[in-house]
Order: sequence, then C-alpha cells, then structure tokens
Amino acid sequence: MLSTTERTTQRKSNRALTGREDLYAVLDAGMICHLGVIHDASGDAFPMVVPTGYGRIGDTLYLHGSSAARSLRAGGEGQICVTVTHLDGVVLARSAFHHSLNYRSAMIYGTPRLVTDEAERMEGLRALTENLAPGQWDTVRKPNRKEMAATIVLALSLEEASVKVRTGPPEDDAADHALPVWAGVLPVRQVFDAPVTDPALRHDLPVPDHITHRI
Amino acid sequence: MLSTTERTTQRKSNRALTGREDLYAVLDAGMICHLGVIHDASGDAFPMVVPTGYGRIGDTLYLHGSSAARSLRAGGEGQICVTVTHLDGVVLARSAFHHSLNYRSAMIYGTPRLVTDEAERMEGLRALTENLAPGQWDTVRKPNRKEMAATIVLALSLEEASVKVRTGPPEDDAADHALPVWAGVLPVRQVFDAPVTDPALRHDLPVPDHITHRI
Repeated sequence: MLSTTERTTQRKSNRALTGREDLYAVLDAGMICHLGVIHDASGDAFPMVVPTGYGRIGDTLYLHGSSAARSLRAGGEGQICVTVTHLDGVVLARSAFHHSLNYRSAMIYGTPRLVTDEAERMEGLRALTENLAPGQWDTVRKPNRKEMAATIVLALSLEEASVKVRTGPPEDDAADHALPVWAGVLPVRQVFDAPVTDPALRHDLPVPDHITHRI
Repeated sequence: MLSTTERTTQRKSNRALTGREDLYAVLDAGMICHLGVIHDASGDAFPMVVPTGYGRIGDTLYLHGSSAARSLRAGGEGQICVTVTHLDGVVLARSAFHHSLNYRSAMIYGTPRLVTDEAERMEGLRALTENLAPGQWDTVRKPNRKEMAATIVLALSLEEASVKVRTGPPEDDAADHALPVWAGVLPVRQVFDAPVTDPALRHDLPVPDHITHRI
C-alpha cells in the first residue's frame, strides 16, 4: 500500500491508485522525471522544476547530476518532489469544460539522502543508466574515479508517494449527450524509431539487440 | 530575445537557445507542463510538481484548474515554475558517464496573475482547449456560468524563461572512441493513434478532420 499522508491523499480519489505495484509500473515505464526543488539561496524562495533521469532499486529512487548543478544542490538541502507522467490520450468531450487528458502520473515527496558510499553510488548510477537503456550498463565503460567525483547521487525513499491515473472516455454532463458533437479519445503513445549510429563510430558494429528490441 | 536573469542563464550554455521563437516552438509543441509550486500552508515548505495543461496567447501562458486544487491555490500566492519537456532520444555512449537524453525543454519563472476579467478568463480557457486539440473550441459547448465559477484561470508572463535543447550523437571522451562499443541515438517520438469514439455517443458522426489529421 502507498502512503496516506495529507499531501498524498487525492482530491479526486476516483483517479488514485493505491498499490506499490502501481507506483513501480509508472516509474519503470518512464525515462525522465520532473524534479521540483525550492531554491532558497537568496532568501527569496522560488520553485525550480527540472527534467532529469532517474533509476529505481526497490523502494529507492536514484537521481544524479553534476556537482555543479543548482537543482541538485538545492534539492540536497531540503524537501523535493519528483513527478513522472505518461500522456496516454487527449479526452475530447462535447463541452469545453470536460476536455481532459488520459495519463498515468506518480508523485514522490521526501528529503533525499546524499549518497556517499561508493558502492551504493555506483549501484545508483547503474540503475539510472539501465532505466534509460536496459542492458546497456554491462556493455559500456563504467565511471572512473574522476567521473565519480564529478557526480552527485541522491537517494529518495518511495515511502511517501501517490499515483494518479485517468483512463477512458469523456465524462460529459448528461444533458450534453444530446449535442451533435463527436466525442472520444485521441490516444497518445511514445515510440522509438530506428537507432542512428554515431557518425564517429570507428568499428563496424551492429546495433545491439537490447537496443533494437525496443523499437 | 529571452531573459538573462541569473536563474535563466544556463550552466551548460551550449545547450541554451535564446530566441523567443525557440520558446514558442517548445511550448506550442506540447500538451502538458509540469507546474512547480511551493506549498507553505503549514509553515513546513515543500515543493509540489503537478502535470497540467496550458495554453499560450502571445507572451502569456494560461493555466487552469478547479477552485479546489491545492497546487493552483498555492501557486496563486507566490512564485511558480512551469516546465515543458519533449523527449527526443536516448543518447547511448561508449561510457556510462556520457549517456544522456536528447530533449527540448522550456522553463518559465514568475508569479502568476489570477485572472478575474471574464472575457480574459474565457480566452485563457479557449487557449487551453485549443492547445490540447486545435480546432476543437468552436465545435463544442462553451463553459457556462457554473463551470466558469468552478474554474481558476492563472496567467503567467513568459518574460523570464529559458530554453534548453540537446540534439545529436553522444559526446564520448576521445580515448573511448577506441572501444568496440556501439554508440548512437535511439530516437523517441510521441504519436497519435486512431481516435476511439465515446461508446456513449448517440449520433452517427464521423471523427472531425481537425482530429483525424493529427494522426
């Protein structure tokens, strides 16, 4: 079961899913999250929302970035919110008011932990790379000492999270069903196209199966 | 030209675009943004990142929501950040460190204005609907008084914004080019599938051209 804190309890509870597996499914289907932090350095606080990669191991989400990144520096000092959203369709109603989107979305709240253990840092980076490209980690050069030093890894517990999903047709008012207006859903989907080989590739290598099989 | 405030000046400036047209292009290509607000009601401030629709008219971005929505109530009282991101590809490098994503992203900072003028509120809602489904507004029932009363419309100036884009192959270290590892980009794209008619549709109506032509 997911948490039921005040901020993870949904206003429209018919769109809320409450299982841990629902959370994992939304996270594991995505490649980018939107990381929200409060930038407070100057005393004039403002939110920042930054798209970034992530990786999951069990009930921990890993984020990473350059040691110089403002967003992670800010996030490392306080509470953050991580949101992953998949757009599944445009909901076309008979009334402007009931237009909507079909989507799956996960929000995670918490204060991240700066990972300092080198083995966990490496596992976090593996999870991040594998989430972008499953099967890739074992085939590429691993981070060296200099690269590890230039990288911040944060761990965020999935303890406080919520999942929200909308599916299905529009929910027009009963009276509007008499209107001669087409209604339905225009499905939206993310696809992969054929891989583009780096023009600088020196070797005559085929695209690996773990990449082509995603197309 | 876009703004050059401290928070819109890029750390990796080779990824920054600086034209207003670049900003419009990223916004107009998207259907959802991630809205970042600071939730501060309890004195224990935390960020919230919520996926939501938007519409643009000139240099103003319109957001809307239920009068009951926590995120908009919080956003209406202070600074917000709106981020729109398009994922264009997975960048597969010879080294784990240089894995990346190709993307186009816009971030807008500012304090939104609660729109109270009824004509502007209606224009904002039109822009929101048209951004989801161009051509739709003129074919559907417009919001009535009760629906307008239940809806908050916020206007955010596009004055302080930044655009960041990554394109092209991985940027591996020169020494890694000797490695026998395939490298390149796996392109990612969002597509529309065939419209699904609402099972409750009473009339024998074809899917309108302004919807089918997006597929």
